[in-house]
Amino acid sequence: MSGNTFGKLFTLTTFGESHGPALGAIVDGCPPGLPLCEEDLQRDLDRRKPGQSRYTTQRREADQVRILSGVFDGVTTGTPIGLLIENTDQKSKDYSNIARQFRPAHADYTYQKKYGVRDYRGGGRSSARETAMRVAAGAIAKKVLAAQCGVEIYGYLAQLGPIAAEQFDRQQIEQNPFFCPDAGKVAELESYMAALGKAGDSIGARINVVATGVPVGLGEPVFDRLDADIAHALMGINAVKGVEVGDGFAVVEQKGSEHRDEITRDGFLSNHAGGVLGGISSGQAITASIALKPTSSLRIPGRSIDMDGNEIEVITTGRHDPCVGIRAVPIAEAMLALTLVDHLLRHRGQCGG
Amino acid sequence: MSGNTFGKLFTLTTFGESHGPALGAIVDGCPPGLPLCEEDLQRDLDRRKPGQSRYTTQRREADQVRILSGVFDGVTTGTPIGLLIENTDQKSKDYSNIARQFRPAHADYTYQKKYGVRDYRGGGRSSARETAMRVAAGAIAKKVLAAQCGVEIYGYLAQLGPIAAEQFDRQQIEQNPFFCPDAGKVAELESYMAALGKAGDSIGARINVVATGVPVGLGEPVFDRLDADIAHALMGINAVKGVEVGDGFAVVEQKGSEHRDEITRDGFLSNHAGGVLGGISSGQAITASIALKPTSSLRIPGRSIDMDGNEIEVITTGRHDPCVGIRAVPIAEAMLALTLVDHLLRHRGQCGG
Amino acid sequence: MSGNTFGKLFTLTTFGESHGPALGAIVDGCPPGLPLCEEDLQRDLDRRKPGQSRYTTQRREADQVRILSGVFDGVTTGTPIGLLIENTDQKSKDYSNIARQFRPAHADYTYQKKYGVRDYRGGGRSSARETAMRVAAGAIAKKVLAAQCGVEIYGYLAQLGPIAAEQFDRQQIEQNPFFCPDAGKVAELESYMAALGKAGDSIGARINVVATGVPVGLGEPVFDRLDADIAHALMGINAVKGVEVGDGFAVVEQKGSEHRDEITRDGFLSNHAGGVLGGISSGQAITASIALKPTSSLRIPGRSIDMDGNEIEVITTGRHDPCVGIRAVPIAEAMLALTLVDHLLRHRGQCGG
Amino acid sequence: MSGNTFGKLFTLTTFGESHGPALGAIVDGCPPGLPLCEEDLQRDLDRRKPGQSRYTTQRREADQVRILSGVFDGVTTGTPIGLLIENTDQKSKDYSNIARQFRPAHADYTYQKKYGVRDYRGGGRSSARETAMRVAAGAIAKKVLAAQCGVEIYGYLAQLGPIAAEQFDRQQIEQNPFFCPDAGKVAELESYMAALGKAGDSIGARINVVATGVPVGLGEPVFDRLDADIAHALMGINAVKGVEVGDGFAVVEQKGSEHRDEITRDGFLSNHAGGVLGGISSGQAITASIALKPTSSLRIPGRSIDMDGNEIEVITTGRHDPCVGIRAVPIAEAMLALTLVDHLLRHRGQCGG
Repeated sequence: MSGNTFGKLFTLTTFGESHGPALGAIVDGCPPGLPLCEEDLQRDLDRRKPGQSRYTTQRREADQVRILSGVFDGVTTGTPIGLLIENTDQKSKDYSNIARQFRPAHADYTYQKKYGVRDYRGGGRSSARETAMRVAAGAIAKKVLAAQCGVEIYGYLAQLGPIAAEQFDRQQIEQNPFFCPDAGKVAELESYMAALGKAGDSIGARINVVATGVPVGLGEPVFDRLDADIAHALMGINAVKGVEVGDGFAVVEQKGSEHRDEITRDGFLSNHAGGVLGGISSGQAITASIALKPTSSLRIPGRSIDMDGNEIEVITTGRHDPCVGIRAVPIAEAMLALTLVDHLLRHRGQCGG
Repeated sequence: MSGNTFGKLFTLTTFGESHGPALGAIVDGCPPGLPLCEEDLQRDLDRRKPGQSRYTTQRREADQVRILSGVFDGVTTGTPIGLLIENTDQKSKDYSNIARQFRPAHADYTYQKKYGVRDYRGGGRSSARETAMRVAAGAIAKKVLAAQCGVEIYGYLAQLGPIAAEQFDRQQIEQNPFFCPDAGKVAELESYMAALGKAGDSIGARINVVATGVPVGLGEPVFDRLDADIAHALMGINAVKGVEVGDGFAVVEQKGSEHRDEITRDGFLSNHAGGVLGGISSGQAITASIALKPTSSLRIPGRSIDMDGNEIEVITTGRHDPCVGIRAVPIAEAMLALTLVDHLLRHRGQCGG
Repeated sequence: MSGNTFGKLFTLTTFGESHGPALGAIVDGCPPGLPLCEEDLQRDLDRRKPGQSRYTTQRREADQVRILSGVFDGVTTGTPIGLLIENTDQKSKDYSNIARQFRPAHADYTYQKKYGVRDYRGGGRSSARETAMRVAAGAIAKKVLAAQCGVEIYGYLAQLGPIAAEQFDRQQIEQNPFFCPDAGKVAELESYMAALGKAGDSIGARINVVATGVPVGLGEPVFDRLDADIAHALMGINAVKGVEVGDGFAVVEQKGSEHRDEITRDGFLSNHAGGVLGGISSGQAITASIALKPTSSLRIPGRSIDMDGNEIEVITTGRHDPCVGIRAVPIAEAMLALTLVDHLLRHRGQCGG
Repeated sequence: MSGNTFGKLFTLTTFGESHGPALGAIVDGCPPGLPLCEEDLQRDLDRRKPGQSRYTTQRREADQVRILSGVFDGVTTGTPIGLLIENTDQKSKDYSNIARQFRPAHADYTYQKKYGVRDYRGGGRSSARETAMRVAAGAIAKKVLAAQCGVEIYGYLAQLGPIAAEQFDRQQIEQNPFFCPDAGKVAELESYMAALGKAGDSIGARINVVATGVPVGLGEPVFDRLDADIAHALMGINAVKGVEVGDGFAVVEQKGSEHRDEITRDGFLSNHAGGVLGGISSGQAITASIALKPTSSLRIPGRSIDMDGNEIEVITTGRHDPCVGIRAVPIAEAMLALTLVDHLLRHRGQCGG
């Protein structure tokens, strides 16, 4: 398993550079008999798509996904599902200025050092554009989980820079371009982002993601614990620097008597654990939280070097998200869905559950 | 790849229950020609061993590891290394009271629901005792990394409940039973732990772990990014609820102009990224931090149910660590070492580096 | 990893049904810096292509492969290589007669029973058409092997039904549509095939495949022995029922004194082993042989049942290869190349070789 | 996964050298709730054990296996099963003469070249002794298959040198030390082996292995086809040079009208396919056949070189099997069982079957 495959039984393998001819993916191991069409995938792709608001990249990506195999007469056949998005927005732009630069906080430096060569156009493989395929595959995973167990997955913006959501109204999440569950914060978010954009700077964010209806028993200790695999999935999203399950870092200051989720005949009395005990789902909601670093493309000049080792000043022109975290909501949902469905199949393999 | 194997080229597979006859492991893929003896493993095992201080479990575990294969004439041969620790402290204790109980915040409930059967003695497979084998294997990984690249790995206690280390003196870490780099906090930690022990309660902790000398280029985007695999490794340690790389959750409130690590001819000017850019090591120190929940075994009664669904009150007698976090230091080091050596081999496979 | 991924470090994942919109593949783990263009792949695709002679399927498959990622400025970048062949020959043919039939010796019955649903058009995923992607990926593997170690791979028809090649002239292989190294047998092969075609019957074949220049040391005992993985690769080709390495089944009647390859200062004196000792390449030529069953699509009626369990008589109209074995030559080469390159990277990972 | 792990969901990982302190294994992914004890494993170990007859090695191996984990109160718990056999027969023999020799047809040369170091005592890791752990694990696999699907697996000697079994009486197989189903050949086998032993030479063999009761649907095309994985499993046994499924190499001369297994309401009319169609089990008996090369340890001198490149004459003293093929019967059964149980779990994961 090279690095571009995710999962063990329900696997996603992706390819594609930001400015190459196309992005594509193969979803293998999808159970047969699931109704599936392109529209099912397009919905989440559109939620991830840049240019949705003034606050995310204006680059136009049609992101029209095609299903090339694995579906026949409207249902999955158990064979691999090929997905393709042609890149329609490949401008013959002049990249000569960034071709030999290492932009700070970007992957330019490490890709060059690792491979000795890189597709520098728009970040190549390290571009967030790559995540489109994760979202498409995640939509399939969500459908399997919903059909087989009634699992529901949603994510939202919990904090953007200094602004934290204080109210939680799930209905609000899709009503604003920030995926913010607190309608009262939307105006504040808008003006904060506008100021950032004007300053040419960017900001970090915290995204929460939740799965309800997850059956008890998913997770394969001691290494492929469900929480460990969720951490792998979420930390693998571009710009993520931290992952929490349940109470996360708050546990550092918790006492055992406070943290433990007591159980009664009617179920657990709390969910500090975030739905995972001993690396296995408990039947409670899975809750996770991630921290995304601020976008690295800034109009504020930064110090760096070029491929010859000369010191340079880097400045990023063009439009960029001042907060990559916002668009991470559907991506985080997708990665959680992919993790859960893979564990569902693994558990069923061993235990017949 | 069932759940008890870690890694892809340098793999660790473990077995063993807390109160079974033995713990064991197979380390496969270790490069040949490395000098290795049991003493190399025993050093870290002894650091992890309970009963090292008044503040960790008093259970006596001899933890004498034997190397059963893969080493000949004092060097590794490239064949799998078999490791074994016989459990010498298997008391024929009476477990009948916990056999049918689900202790809150333990894995009793989820193991029972997942497998339909469990070895309830001392937590069975979900016991922290299982991590002894990770530490033994991690010592091998550390030796490979040191020999091949000069990598050095160390961990320490950054915070225990309300007490955070404020000074960092690496020499102090091994001078106190808390792995605390701030000698000035040791007395405070001692009295805090004593009070907790008296109250029968427990507390969480934050552990930091660092790797220096890591070559640039390790990590296989887009899914097996180095940071994603570190997150998998660290979140897979018992009781861990959060993982950060570099600045971690602090990035939520950082601006891009503040977060980015600028580069000069002499290298990076800062290390907010924690040594990973685009999922690939940058050559800077790898820094990660984890949150460990408080020990679940408490003398303070808690509500739960038994296997028949009857509500019960659970109380844990016997001696237990009031803070499992402390002993996690060598475990976190081991998991980081195992992740890095696996990526070193993967990178070398593809790029010849 | 699900069933449509081959290899561990250099991986091939494929999708596509015979009569779906496209076939595709992702080659992951290809070393960076390798010059690569579509023409490199097309050459082997054209050798595999049906309709090359009167003796293979007349279906026109354009088989024009596109490289969609992983190559920049004419060289591989180390990122996954996306490949696509659009199916241009998708006739809106009437498949209603075979939709509910289980053709004897085809995969209709097992796909239906396994998945509960299948794309019956042209055999769907079980069609030999699927192997086009193996050939395309194999061409990349061949290039890596040639560039890094000077490995050369070729295959040929050793026997077709009762007609065995008796002379071996490597130059002849590509000079006739049978990949037969014995020019003196070509006329006989032609008339035999013509007679078979007239009778509506088919015939089996034996294909040999050889790799020269393979470095000593490839293979990971005890399970991923080089010969075991070659067997997996070759038995995984449609219609293959037997695999031999070196002397193969002839060893049953050999004495030890006759079989062993003695060694002198100048190297091995013979190659009964086929280039593999103890599961590891010895530096001699790797030699393997496979048996391919006769094509299952016949004009001679056969007994079977339909999906309702009714007994039916099946007859296959349309043009089909009377011998699938012939076209297996480039496929077998591809599978051998994919196996060797994967083992080259694995060996280099562990041993730095 | 490194080379010493077999399987994907039901995995076997082994360690151990011929003359090291112990052999061991970890079986991971075994379904919970299966009754299991050491006696279940010992039965097959005893069948494999050398010294069973005058015709196999006289070396005494106690081969007493211990189960160290994964079984509690007499049933499997779903956690990894640790197995251990201490090597009781480790003589402090003088190996100085073979330490620097490359015995022809042994793995000495390739291990040395691959790893740069090797445990030369008794062949180290390349010794057939390693297969004891496969047999132990295979016994667990057989129990799972029998319990869950009623699968039964048996193997037998089909041919030894020029002597082929002509009658098949399954009851006879375990009645003679050759696993020969044709009682009428036993005397001939005895005198043939005695003559060989006197001459210091050895001979090849053909072993057949059969699984009945295999449910339809096992196998994951297109790469992890059931037959491909069986080929991998069987070719991975020491000394195997050829693998056939169903009619094997006989298909080269078969016509399609002769090979195809026709189907009626009452099932298949023949089983040329060996129970696999399109890489998926058909519900018929799985039949496979393997060719084992003659033992490489001969008393007849052979030419070779030493580690310094000097030409030497090699002669093997001590007692050795004149035919390793005989003892391969339980090993082949074990590898087939391990393959089938892994595919059973994989199929159940995806299809819920």
